Amino acid sequence: QSLLIRGGRIITADQDYVADILVRGERIVEIATSIPQDGVDEVIDASGKLVFPGFIDPHVHIHLPFMGTHAKDDYDSASRAALIGGTTTLIEMICPGRDDDPWEAYQRWKGKAEGLSACDFSFHMGVTRFDAGSETQLRRIIDDGITSLKVFLAYKGALGVTDTELFRTCQLAADTGAVVTAHCENADLIDELQSQLVAQGKVGPEFHEPSRPVSVEADGVHHFCTFLEMTGASGYIVHTSCSPAIEAARQFQARGVDVTIETVIPYLVLDKTYAERPNFEGAKYVMSPPLRDIRHQTQLWNAIGCGTIATVATDHAPFDFADQKAMGRAPESDFTKIPNGIPSVEHRCTLLYTHGVATGKIDLHQFVSLLSTNAAKQFGMFPAKGTIGLGSDADIVVWDPNYRGVISAETHTMNTDYDGFEGFEIVGRPSVVTCRGQVSVRDGKFTGKLGHGRAVPRKLARKS
Amino acid sequence: QSLLIRGGRIITADQDYVADILVRGERIVEIATSIPQDGVDEVIDASGKLVFPGFIDPHVHIHLPFMGTHAKDDYDSASRAALIGGTTTLIEMICPGRDDDPWEAYQRWKGKAEGLSACDFSFHMGVTRFDAGSETQLRRIIDDGITSLKVFLAYKGALGVTDTELFRTCQLAADTGAVVTAHCENADLIDELQSQLVAQGKVGPEFHEPSRPVSVEADGVHHFCTFLEMTGASGYIVHTSCSPAIEAARQFQARGVDVTIETVIPYLVLDKTYAERPNFEGAKYVMSPPLRDIRHQTQLWNAIGCGTIATVATDHAPFDFADQKAMGRAPESDFTKIPNGIPSVEHRCTLLYTHGVATGKIDLHQFVSLLSTNAAKQFGMFPAKGTIGLGSDADIVVWDPNYRGVISAETHTMNTDYDGFEGFEIVGRPSVVTCRGQVSVRDGKFTGKLGHGRAVPRKLARKS
Amino acid sequence: QSLLIRGGRIITADQDYVADILVRGERIVEIATSIPQDGVDEVIDASGKLVFPGFIDPHVHIHLPFMGTHAKDDYDSASRAALIGGTTTLIEMICPGRDDDPWEAYQRWKGKAEGLSACDFSFHMGVTRFDAGSETQLRRIIDDGITSLKVFLAYKGALGVTDTELFRTCQLAADTGAVVTAHCENADLIDELQSQLVAQGKVGPEFHEPSRPVSVEADGVHHFCTFLEMTGASGYIVHTSCSPAIEAARQFQARGVDVTIETVIPYLVLDKTYAERPNFEGAKYVMSPPLRDIRHQTQLWNAIGCGTIATVATDHAPFDFADQKAMGRAPESDFTKIPNGIPSVEHRCTLLYTHGVATGKIDLHQFVSLLSTNAAKQFGMFPAKGTIGLGSDADIVVWDPNYRGVISAETHTMNTDYDGFEGFEIVGRPSVVTCRGQVSVRDGKFTGKLGHGRAVPRKLARKS
Amino acid sequence: QSLLIRGGRIITADQDYVADILVRGERIVEIATSIPQDGVDEVIDASGKLVFPGFIDPHVHIHLPFMGTHAKDDYDSASRAALIGGTTTLIEMICPGRDDDPWEAYQRWKGKAEGLSACDFSFHMGVTRFDAGSETQLRRIIDDGITSLKVFLAYKGALGVTDTELFRTCQLAADTGAVVTAHCENADLIDELQSQLVAQGKVGPEFHEPSRPVSVEADGVHHFCTFLEMTGASGYIVHTSCSPAIEAARQFQARGVDVTIETVIPYLVLDKTYAERPNFEGAKYVMSPPLRDIRHQTQLWNAIGCGTIATVATDHAPFDFADQKAMGRAPESDFTKIPNGIPSVEHRCTLLYTHGVATGKIDLHQFVSLLSTNAAKQFGMFPAKGTIGLGSDADIVVWDPNYRGVISAETHTMNTDYDGFEGFEIVGRPSVVTCRGQVSVRDGKFTGKLGHGRAVPRKLARKS
Ligand SMILES: [Zn+2]
Ligand SMILES: [Zn+2]
Ligand SMILES: [Zn+2]
Ligand SMILES: [Zn+2]
Ligand SMILES: [Zn+2]
Ligand SMILES: [Zn+2]
Ligand SMILES: [Zn+2]
Ligand SMILES: [Zn+2]
Repeated sequence: QSLLIRGGRIITADQDYVADILVRGERIVEIATSIPQDGVDEVIDASGKLVFPGFIDPHVHIHLPFMGTHAKDDYDSASRAALIGGTTTLIEMICPGRDDDPWEAYQRWKGKAEGLSACDFSFHMGVTRFDAGSETQLRRIIDDGITSLKVFLAYKGALGVTDTELFRTCQLAADTGAVVTAHCENADLIDELQSQLVAQGKVGPEFHEPSRPVSVEADGVHHFCTFLEMTGASGYIVHTSCSPAIEAARQFQARGVDVTIETVIPYLVLDKTYAERPNFEGAKYVMSPPLRDIRHQTQLWNAIGCGTIATVATDHAPFDFADQKAMGRAPESDFTKIPNGIPSVEHRCTLLYTHGVATGKIDLHQFVSLLSTNAAKQFGMFPAKGTIGLGSDADIVVWDPNYRGVISAETHTMNTDYDGFEGFEIVGRPSVVTCRGQVSVRDGKFTGKLGHGRAVPRKLARKS
Repeated sequence: QSLLIRGGRIITADQDYVADILVRGERIVEIATSIPQDGVDEVIDASGKLVFPGFIDPHVHIHLPFMGTHAKDDYDSASRAALIGGTTTLIEMICPGRDDDPWEAYQRWKGKAEGLSACDFSFHMGVTRFDAGSETQLRRIIDDGITSLKVFLAYKGALGVTDTELFRTCQLAADTGAVVTAHCENADLIDELQSQLVAQGKVGPEFHEPSRPVSVEADGVHHFCTFLEMTGASGYIVHTSCSPAIEAARQFQARGVDVTIETVIPYLVLDKTYAERPNFEGAKYVMSPPLRDIRHQTQLWNAIGCGTIATVATDHAPFDFADQKAMGRAPESDFTKIPNGIPSVEHRCTLLYTHGVATGKIDLHQFVSLLSTNAAKQFGMFPAKGTIGLGSDADIVVWDPNYRGVISAETHTMNTDYDGFEGFEIVGRPSVVTCRGQVSVRDGKFTGKLGHGRAVPRKLARKS
Repeated sequence: QSLLIRGGRIITADQDYVADILVRGERIVEIATSIPQDGVDEVIDASGKLVFPGFIDPHVHIHLPFMGTHAKDDYDSASRAALIGGTTTLIEMICPGRDDDPWEAYQRWKGKAEGLSACDFSFHMGVTRFDAGSETQLRRIIDDGITSLKVFLAYKGALGVTDTELFRTCQLAADTGAVVTAHCENADLIDELQSQLVAQGKVGPEFHEPSRPVSVEADGVHHFCTFLEMTGASGYIVHTSCSPAIEAARQFQARGVDVTIETVIPYLVLDKTYAERPNFEGAKYVMSPPLRDIRHQTQLWNAIGCGTIATVATDHAPFDFADQKAMGRAPESDFTKIPNGIPSVEHRCTLLYTHGVATGKIDLHQFVSLLSTNAAKQFGMFPAKGTIGLGSDADIVVWDPNYRGVISAETHTMNTDYDGFEGFEIVGRPSVVTCRGQVSVRDGKFTGKLGHGRAVPRKLARKS
Repeated sequence: QSLLIRGGRIITADQDYVADILVRGERIVEIATSIPQDGVDEVIDASGKLVFPGFIDPHVHIHLPFMGTHAKDDYDSASRAALIGGTTTLIEMICPGRDDDPWEAYQRWKGKAEGLSACDFSFHMGVTRFDAGSETQLRRIIDDGITSLKVFLAYKGALGVTDTELFRTCQLAADTGAVVTAHCENADLIDELQSQLVAQGKVGPEFHEPSRPVSVEADGVHHFCTFLEMTGASGYIVHTSCSPAIEAARQFQARGVDVTIETVIPYLVLDKTYAERPNFEGAKYVMSPPLRDIRHQTQLWNAIGCGTIATVATDHAPFDFADQKAMGRAPESDFTKIPNGIPSVEHRCTLLYTHGVATGKIDLHQFVSLLSTNAAKQFGMFPAKGTIGLGSDADIVVWDPNYRGVISAETHTMNTDYDGFEGFEIVGRPSVVTCRGQVSVRDGKFTGKLGHGRAVPRKLARKS
């Protein structure tokens, strides 16, 4: 099976040229100024279009049990939504319970994707307990190519780890070369702040942000980076929402600690006033860390501009407004019961293009780095993923920079009854997306195949 | 004329694959897994080798009048030395006198390179006076493709500009899209410190560093960045030597100021103890800003590791030890009369490979970014320079990672009677270097052609 | 002549007790629980009142020529206003022209005060030129007890000094033990920003702040502190208006540089919206550095709270609204011609009491330190001034904490036709003020004597 | 009983004058230029001497059970040693076990002092568990005048509190106005680092510092200050040893968090090379946080100079070298078993005078503030303690600035078999010390009375 993508302007993190790309099977086999189309099974005209490597979303939740319910997407809807948005690889957080067996959890999570996902996928292995038994299994999981671990700081009695466990997780990472990814909020502190607010009758979604102030996030980052420094592990801070958190991490980078910073698309285009919308509308915008004061948005863009932020992910976690977000509706309930998440796996790339490239905040190379290359390198998928090159996987996005559209829940593919970006105008979208050679999207429609996706083989991210 | 480079591992800032590269004339016309060699004029076997884009040294001095003498290299020796080290493009600082006519100075500097240089070249246009007349000429020079200006802060009565001139230079840059590069030391302050030291009989080269402490450099950076912030211009800080200077710039980056940081290779492998060597040996290591306490070396590597430093240049400025450096020898003279500079255009890449890649401090992609890609983008040469891609200039370095050697003035090509890195062991060097298709180096020998070099056409670096 | 102040609660920086104070002549001769009033010339009942040491305003302008006019107060009105507000000592800035003879200027300024001022006074000696001649005279002036110098950073062609002059001034200070006080804005930069704004037709008082952004002030502080660090001099930053300036100074304090920070009362109770008032009302609020965004007000209070700010002065500089501020009124003129200053020598203490003590932001000891003790120590007047103790000057403020009033130009003593704090409600004011034993104020009325004031003998502030 | 101290130079935080002091009973009743000595029971000639308020050591351990043994001092030896050094008030840490009843612990600790101590005393109430029962008792203890709490961060399974308990302790403090004092090291992290080192055979006292790096302390400070910020409580960081910890606290001060910084005398005159002494001598210098690299010493002095550090205490914790420190001697044991502490309650003031005042680093007013006034204010004892004033407690130190001596275990009063400052030359010492009117020291000899000491009545430190 062969595919020829003709005449597009190929943009990678460090390339910018016009050429034809020939795909055979799952790989790019030729890139040349002019490739004859004889005998090629399919030809796609990319003239006037940009051609990017398939985008990687390094932070999504698909199989996410929550308070007796589940996040709404499965790999059917999530992978289709991802592909339509240009994302060809998802990295999902495995969130086992504290008493779960790590290997079993890994198999369970993988089982939800394999045979169903239309796009490629991998996982960060959540560490919710660290003892001799779990260590053995974690080493086996890392050997199996899951070269990144995930911790929550002190989610007391739930998903979090103690400081002793955090230290040992970091030691394991330092020893194996795996990366520790971390959700950096101190849950004990948040528990207390939540209790205070609820006791004061402050129960609406507008109190979600005050229950997790920027200082709490910054303290989590400071704490996590201290553990990285003590152990020599490499770290990755997920969903950084605010300037103090970035500045905390920066201090450690300047001291030589290897820590990478992710933000997620909602923080770049939304702010806390969304969560303050009346009639419980704000609940649509409850995620953690919360949407912040709008001045942090500027500071995040600044951090992107100078390269301090390496990746833009989503923290996609889809819950319906009507019945799921409603679990936290007063007066019967309160904001602490609102399932967290702003579904965005479908819109990440077009929102970053619209608000970043089209406004001149970032250039096309930064666009690719933030959405694809940096994640591919960080998580050991490069150069199979993250670039357009000979031998690389044929994950290709043909992007129409002239497309104009409007986001709406009525037209989106994600399986939620609302869209946090409803009515947002967008500039640019994929006109064609391929996943390992499979043409999976054309003009906004899914044309791929469920079950086509595969677990991405991953290396350790060590310096070569 | 055609050239085939076969079987190398091609490394760019975001690529890593094995392929053949076909060059016709001055450009890369094909990159493919296996290119037939029939009819190709020359074939180079790169198997087992790394293949990098030609390196760019964005900060050198060639034609440099100094106190009645001149720096020792001309474009003959300098371009040969550069090529032997893997550098295929030089950007020279034009340093006109305060009363010189800018356009005339530009022509004069260009005239020294054209017809003589074996490698490509461009210039940063030194601004040593800013008035209506010079502004007109500077605009013309920018239009001619010299899209970067250069200022010295307050070199009173010599090369420096007043704050008013600095402001207007930045405004011109903001208006045209040119970049302002800056040497950030306050010369008035240094004059005073020098006078104090000399008055105290502190006249040896070991007093050069105390005469220009890190605080002075940090203050210069703070001052320059303030002007960038006020005008909206893009800036580039040359030869950053120490942590306080970097931290000063960082604050402005975090506030959204577009400022890029360069360091130079001597700061990464030498320290101030070299300048303290007895018998005036220290004079070989006098440059400005000076070599610093060794702890700054670590901090510079940290800043490289997290991407805060974008480029590693040389500030190449070659003066003989015997008669030129001796101009500042006590008791007749003092350290303030020592011509500044540590010749290094030949060794930059191998030293960075040896001390960065071979030690695991940086990976191969960072190596290419620091030496080539970032400078190409910053100075509007990308993607003709700075990457290996279809249509790019055929500036190619075939690198032998297994080479082991020792640096010595006896074998170097630079035209100085000493080498600051004498006896340093090195790992890796270019086995072949091409400059726009011309095979200019083979196994450490110059095989190119004087006069082959051309002024590189440059764009503005604006975000696209 | 004797005076007994009975039963007040005496508050100094480190005392809090109830006692009687006996004054004979100019000095405090006894402090005791119960002093017999027999034979005492005058008895003042201070029961229920607070008794503070006389306040010191270390930054005022009285004799201030400006564009062919003069500031409105002379020592007659200024010293009366000061005393009514509780200030018993003024330190005035001597602002000679660049070509003036320092000794002559000193005599001229002193001549304006001697024989006229009702309160005590001293001076900071403005350095507007530094050469061998001026150095000799400056040493003589320092020997005469004027142990503090004053510089403007780079007021090009006017009051400012070059960096060379700044360095030498700092050296002189380091050598003699005098303190360098500095106005830290870069005038060249401001000139350019002003020109830009005016060229864009932005000529109203609301453009004064944008013409001198916080970054410019922070850069000035950074620059000045660098000079202190290089020379080992002690410094004092006048009228600090914003958080970045404080943070810049803080970095140097942490490195061991002896630099003290002053703010002035307008920054603590006003903000830039005052200068944006319509109908040229904003001109009343034009001073330099300008009133800032209100968030800086909070940060200044924080800096006061933790002791980073040592003194609260006024920068008193009185100009009438009707004819003097009007010199900068569009369309004939622009904001750059508005005489700078917000008259406040009369209100400083009551405003700090109202907004600081009465709100709980500071305690009574901090109140005294900020208004009196710290300035007395910094400027070599302690313990004659700055405390209530045996042998100290009988500069005493009996403060009525229960007084409530409203500020108005109709009732104020300062010689201006408007009051920047018009309508402000105040809590507390002096009921009695003595200056070296002379009862100068009773219940808001001046009862002192013009000409009573004397030049305060001053020592060097060196650590003992 | 009356006492007259004649002709001394009285120095407080804000006074400097020569006078006589008359004491009747426990209080100062008169301060005057010349007080007749008729009828006075005792006259002390203080001419040529400095007269300071009694010093306060706000951080000592006396009754300190440790691994089956106890610290060597009881209130007999400790109070005598304190007084000889000029300290008239001790604040001891109450360190209950996690299961102890707070009120009972308070009574037990108080019982060790009452009737035995020769000097005055108070306590910080250690919070090692926080639940409804302990909260009730803590409120009762605060009401009883123990207006400061003490927490250890995360001394897992021992003295530390969980984050939830820390939050609630801070809330209690915010609610009552008590101050939270905190030992800011993360014990879980230290446990892990200790285990690593011991496992590597790094068992000597020189590995104590690497087991508790500066980053761990800085992280603790950051964490604690975050809790203060969230709750609005006032905090006090005990025994700050290094620059990163100070800088972490500074950020919060600048944001308005009310946090005060203590250092202790060993950090100002010793450094980690002491703990690296051979033959287990280093064990004498094991305390926590550990002695640091000498550059932190300079930075602590800088922080003292600019007022960032408010108090200099001791963390006095005396253990014999021969049998107690030996509990951590290899090969049978390791450094983690060495009882922590460098006995210094006797030497604090003379060491600060010698290394601070006599070297010109601080002036006499700072000396008094650091050793007495700031602690008195912070812990609600002012103005009874912390100053020399009418009505204040007659805690008076007549200081001989001309004394020269040498510290030695042979002559010290503390009950340990070694002295960490053995052989240190000192400048200045108390010649007379009174505690509430009782002459307790003359010329280095204890002349007081065991049992004279009393629990100091304390107020809340709230701003008045
Ligand atoms: Zn998360
Ligand atoms: Zn997540
Ligand atoms: Zn330079
Ligand atoms: Zn240069
Ligand atoms: Zn000023
Ligand atoms: Zn002024
Ligand atoms: Zn402790
Ligand atoms: Zn302790």
